Amino acid sequence: MTDRIRLPDITKRRMVQLLQLLKAWPNEKITSIEISQLTGWKDSLIRHDFWLLGTELKGVSNGYQKDDLYKTISSLLGIEPLQTFQNQKESTDAYVNSFTGSDSTERLLKNICIVGLGRLGASLLDQDLIDSSLFQIKAGFDSNVYRVEILRSTFPLYPANEMDWVIKREKIEYAILTVQDASAQQMCNRLVKAGIKGIVNMTNVVLMVPDGVKIENLSIVNALKMVI
Amino acid sequence: MTDRIRLPDITKRRMVQLLQLLKAWPNEKITSIEISQLTGWKDSLIRHDFWLLGTELKGVSNGYQKDDLYKTISSLLGIEPLQTFQNQKESTDAYVNSFTGSDSTERLLKNICIVGLGRLGASLLDQDLIDSSLFQIKAGFDSNVYRVEILRSTFPLYPANEMDWVIKREKIEYAILTVQDASAQQMCNRLVKAGIKGIVNMTNVVLMVPDGVKIENLSIVNALKMVI
Repeated sequence: MTDRIRLPDITKRRMVQLLQLLKAWPNEKITSIEISQLTGWKDSLIRHDFWLLGTELKGVSNGYQKDDLYKTISSLLGIEPLQTFQNQKESTDAYVNSFTGSDSTERLLKNICIVGLGRLGASLLDQDLIDSSLFQIKAGFDSNVYRVEILRSTFPLYPANEMDWVIKREKIEYAILTVQDASAQQMCNRLVKAGIKGIVNMTNVVLMVPDGVKIENLSIVNALKMVI
Repeated sequence: MTDRIRLPDITKRRMVQLLQLLKAWPNEKITSIEISQLTGWKDSLIRHDFWLLGTELKGVSNGYQKDDLYKTISSLLGIEPLQTFQNQKESTDAYVNSFTGSDSTERLLKNICIVGLGRLGASLLDQDLIDSSLFQIKAGFDSNVYRVEILRSTFPLYPANEMDWVIKREKIEYAILTVQDASAQQMCNRLVKAGIKGIVNMTNVVLMVPDGVKIENLSIVNALKMVI
C-alpha cells in the first residue's frame, strides 16, 4: 500500500472513530460541522485532520460524500477497503485490484491471534466479535494446556510454547494480549520475537517493546480510572 | 477532593500508565530518564506532565521517591489512595482520613455497573478483573431476562428495564458498556438519564453524551485498527 501515510496517533484515533460514525450515518453527505456536533471535536480540528490526510479531502463547501470520505480515510489508514461499498461491487473490485494486483481478497485480511484464554480472552473466541471484513483470527494461545483442550473455538488453539512457529506459519502479524499481568511482559517479548508487529494490550501492564512494534492499551481498569 | 485538578486527557492517560509502571518498579527511587526509557515518552514531556500536576513534583535532581510519586499522582487524579501504602498502614490511614474525615474506606470505592452480559460482558462478571481497591461492581444489566437469571455473579444482575432505580439506589456513578452496537446509543442515553458520570465504551459505536459525562473508548476492533 504505497499511499499509506504517517499520521499522529491522535489523528488516527479520531479517524478510526469517524469511520465508525460514517458507517451509521444515514445521509449521503456529511459536513464537518455535523461531524463536530456528533463527536464534540472542533470543526477546525476535523479540517486539520483532513488536511493531514491529504489533498483529496480539501475544499469541499457543501459537505463530503459519505462513501468517498469513508473510502479515502480507510485506504489512507490502510484499513477496511473491502466492506465499504457493498452496494457498489464494481468499483470495489476495481479499487481492491488496484493494490492487490489480483482478485484475491484474502491478502487484505490481517491475521491475528489471542494470547491468554482466561475469562476475558475466552470471551473473544468468536470471530463475530472481531470485524471479519478486516481481521481473521488464526490462533489462540494459553500456557494452560487444559484450557487449550477444553475451550471451544472456531479457530485452532495451541499451548503457548508453540507460539513461535504457529505465528510464523500462519503469517500472524497482530495479537490481542489478555494474559495475567504477571506474565504480560514475558508473553509480549515472545510475541515480538516471533515477529508480531502490533499488540492490543488488555492487561494493566505498561509493555516495553522495540521501535516498530505498535501497542494499543485497552486495560479496563485504566479506562475506569480515566472516566473518574 | 478539593485538590483534584483539571488535566489534559493525554497527560492523564500517561499518568494512569505511570501509576501501573510504578507499582511494578523494584527500586525506591525513579528518575524521569528511567521513566522515559520504560515508556518511550520524552524526558521533557514527563517533566511537563509533572509540571501540570503541580509544584510538589518539581525540582528533583536525583530521582523521585517511588511511593511519594505514586501517592501524589494518584491523589491528584482522584484515584487509588488506598492500596498504595499497604506496608505503611499508619500513614495511609492518616492520608485517607485527611479527606474522608473518618475511617470509612467505603466512601472511596467507586460504584460501577456492567451493561450488556453477552460473551464479553459476562467475562467481566468477576470482581477480580476490576481493581477492587478502587472499584466496586454493584450491578450487571441485560435486556435479556434469561441471561440475567442463569449467569453467575458475585453481585446482583437485573433486567435492563430496572436500570434507572438500581443505579440511583446503589449510587452507581460509572458503567462499562458491552452491549451490541445496535443498542449502544440507546443504553448510553438511559445510563446518562440515570445519572451515570462516566462510561467505558467497549462497543464500536461513537457515543454521543452531554457535557460532563466522560467516555473512554475501548473497542477491540478499533484498537486493532490502531496497531495496523
